[in-house]
Amino acid sequence: MSLATLVEPESIGVIGASADPSKAGYLLLENIVVNGYEGTVYPINPRAESILGLKCYPDVTALPEAPDVVFFLVPAERLKASIEQCVARGVKAGVIVTAGFSETGEQGARAEREIAAIIKQAGMRCTGPNTVGVVNKQKNLVASFVPFKHWADGPVALGAQTGNFTGCIADEIMTRDTQRFGICKSVPLGNKIDLDEVDFLDYCWKDAAAQVIGLHLEDLRRPREFLELARQVTRDKPVIVLKTGRTAGGMKAAASHTGSLAIEDRLVNAFFRQVGIIRVTTLDDYLCALKCFAFQPLPRGKRVAILTHSGANGVMGADELDDVGLELAPLSDETRRRINKLMPPWQEVSNPADIWLALGQDNRGGTAECLNAMMDDPNTDMVLFLSLPLVNSDFDGVRQVFEEAIRRHPEKPIFMGCYGGDVKRRWRRDLEGLNIPIEDWSVLLINAMGAMYRYTQVRGR
Amino acid sequence: MSLATLVEPESIGVIGASADPSKAGYLLLENIVVNGYEGTVYPINPRAESILGLKCYPDVTALPEAPDVVFFLVPAERLKASIEQCVARGVKAGVIVTAGFSETGEQGARAEREIAAIIKQAGMRCTGPNTVGVVNKQKNLVASFVPFKHWADGPVALGAQTGNFTGCIADEIMTRDTQRFGICKSVPLGNKIDLDEVDFLDYCWKDAAAQVIGLHLEDLRRPREFLELARQVTRDKPVIVLKTGRTAGGMKAAASHTGSLAIEDRLVNAFFRQVGIIRVTTLDDYLCALKCFAFQPLPRGKRVAILTHSGANGVMGADELDDVGLELAPLSDETRRRINKLMPPWQEVSNPADIWLALGQDNRGGTAECLNAMMDDPNTDMVLFLSLPLVNSDFDGVRQVFEEAIRRHPEKPIFMGCYGGDVKRRWRRDLEGLNIPIEDWSVLLINAMGAMYRYTQVRGR
Repeated sequence: MSLATLVEPESIGVIGASADPSKAGYLLLENIVVNGYEGTVYPINPRAESILGLKCYPDVTALPEAPDVVFFLVPAERLKASIEQCVARGVKAGVIVTAGFSETGEQGARAEREIAAIIKQAGMRCTGPNTVGVVNKQKNLVASFVPFKHWADGPVALGAQTGNFTGCIADEIMTRDTQRFGICKSVPLGNKIDLDEVDFLDYCWKDAAAQVIGLHLEDLRRPREFLELARQVTRDKPVIVLKTGRTAGGMKAAASHTGSLAIEDRLVNAFFRQVGIIRVTTLDDYLCALKCFAFQPLPRGKRVAILTHSGANGVMGADELDDVGLELAPLSDETRRRINKLMPPWQEVSNPADIWLALGQDNRGGTAECLNAMMDDPNTDMVLFLSLPLVNSDFDGVRQVFEEAIRRHPEKPIFMGCYGGDVKRRWRRDLEGLNIPIEDWSVLLINAMGAMYRYTQVRGR
Repeated sequence: MSLATLVEPESIGVIGASADPSKAGYLLLENIVVNGYEGTVYPINPRAESILGLKCYPDVTALPEAPDVVFFLVPAERLKASIEQCVARGVKAGVIVTAGFSETGEQGARAEREIAAIIKQAGMRCTGPNTVGVVNKQKNLVASFVPFKHWADGPVALGAQTGNFTGCIADEIMTRDTQRFGICKSVPLGNKIDLDEVDFLDYCWKDAAAQVIGLHLEDLRRPREFLELARQVTRDKPVIVLKTGRTAGGMKAAASHTGSLAIEDRLVNAFFRQVGIIRVTTLDDYLCALKCFAFQPLPRGKRVAILTHSGANGVMGADELDDVGLELAPLSDETRRRINKLMPPWQEVSNPADIWLALGQDNRGGTAECLNAMMDDPNTDMVLFLSLPLVNSDFDGVRQVFEEAIRRHPEKPIFMGCYGGDVKRRWRRDLEGLNIPIEDWSVLLINAMGAMYRYTQVRGR
């Protein structure tokens, strides 16, 4: 069953549920209730009658049934006894939120190994210790101690080796005004006492909701199995991995964070490339790549058209395309003809296309014609608009212009850099919901575009 | 005189001033007026009596005096005649906003060379063609066709090879709610028909207001002079250069943007390093480095303390420190003692320090004690707080806690990564004005911290 029972429970128990709104044991329970989890919830706390309107039980043996999953939020020193009780009660899966084990040194690692032996013998499947919970939007299960009033569903499945970090990323995304992308599953694995990245990958492979798989890893628990499985999964779905602990200093920090074992970083790069995993090294690249894969179709090739309000940004974009192995599209004669018609006689369009001078007296018309010409061009596989929307280049109906461009060519991925002052802020709001990935500048987008192109090669192999 | 007259004029003429609020010739004039330029302004337009309450003149010969600087916003085909008239009138400096010259190909380059010969013979000093204007906050001169209602003064001087781009960066910074940094001079050089990066650097070296020099370049017009001068300037002030046109594709795009000549990129790297220039390759790194140099004192060494709400971010920070040659500080016994007192018995503080468990029942007290311990520690040269402010780690008086830490150690640079949802947004607002550089994650900050440390080596040589 691996991860399925843990992620898709019909009933859950929360050991360490709390009536104190500042405690993780309250926040996790509140999240479950507020987000409308469809199964049965059993708060477990010997000192409370009820919490959040739910009847409270003194311990797991007092429950009317063995819950599919138990969340452990007890102090570290009481975890072992609590797990033994659950094993005796026949609980099949657990999420160990409790911290204080292998991430704290040898003593903690020993305690963790003892617990690992107990759950292994019982056949109980667990994530953690030191995790934030688990989210499965398909069950409206938002069981995390980071509070979420609203969780947007979507094609991205996130696995991680850590808690707060995962919670915070989701918190930021879900409370954004713009550029929100939906997350169907979030599974922070913690110290990986049992379930690990292999189980996560396998689950997401089979999960219809998961279309883009993102993984934050500090180590590989079962490298061989992971890579063998990834080779298969990447034929169907993109797998984007933020593997940290790249350097000597980082590996040392990872060892003390999640008890990770060091692995030579250039081997990680080589293995990932071999099996078609997309590796990113910064959080910004991770989040941007997830968004681009979630928002846009895959490109049919590597030829990119760049439109811009500034030649300077065009130059940077051209540099960055070279960096990732993409190419500036050779514009068709028809595209040149259409854009040159708007240009002053002394300026011919090229790629990158500085369209500032094509706007003339009609910013909207000029922008629309340049954009559509690039989208219509059979020589372009992706379109990147590097806009600097100023009063001088602004217009009403920004959304309609882009909507129309997408309507004409829904198969062609489009991306946007958008920087500047108040006008930029309005453009970003206006474009919300069209699923155009927008960043300040080009570099994150072009890195993601490069990843999308490389992924088409992986999928086609 | 090189750049001084052009940047510090007592009087300016605007040829191509317009009464049409959508035109650059109106926007530039409006900016000059709105921002309270202290000198005399002469709009020049044969078809207007007055613009924005200023008396209009039909041409430069009709002016009561030769203005110190003339801004040219005439169509490309009328530029030559207009410049000849100014030369005859004795105008000593010009800002050629007009585009359509060497950036458009051989014909434009020919026309530019003709004009270059005229101004050279007359001893007139010019920036452009293809520039957005010039800003000197010390004169309240905001002469740019990008509209600015407000321009914040500060230690950063910006030179650039391009217009809209420069205007947009300033527009974004000046309209931000948080993390604004002030700009004393902004000089987009355009095609560099005459004045170039050497003149800009020389001017900023001597300008007391300019403490941090930022330069965007697509080529080096006078490489030898630039590098010789930079070697001297970098002893006094940091020089941060975003040199684009790094790759074959980028160089080709740069040639068509500003008529730039290609230069082998690894030579650029080697030369810059030799003379102490800080090179950045992305816009995000450029803006973050400018901000960090503007906001914080230089570090006394390379030992960094990382505090974080998430071990995962600590690991990434440790990786990134290694990437740029910085080190995790070995915490003093006193620091360990202070922080361990707050930790559960099974967890000892290390660096990176995950302080989540030190918060206990008193998020404010715990945060303040950990932060102050790190700031007080003689073993730490810089402090980086990688916060994920959640409901669970939040507290009232965030500003006071950081204010106190800075008050105790104003000499020690402090930086902050801050990510998450609504709580993060409040933290960022609360901390505004304390001059703590804040980014989402660590990578840009650590890149800038590395640059600051390397610069201390340059200055000390």
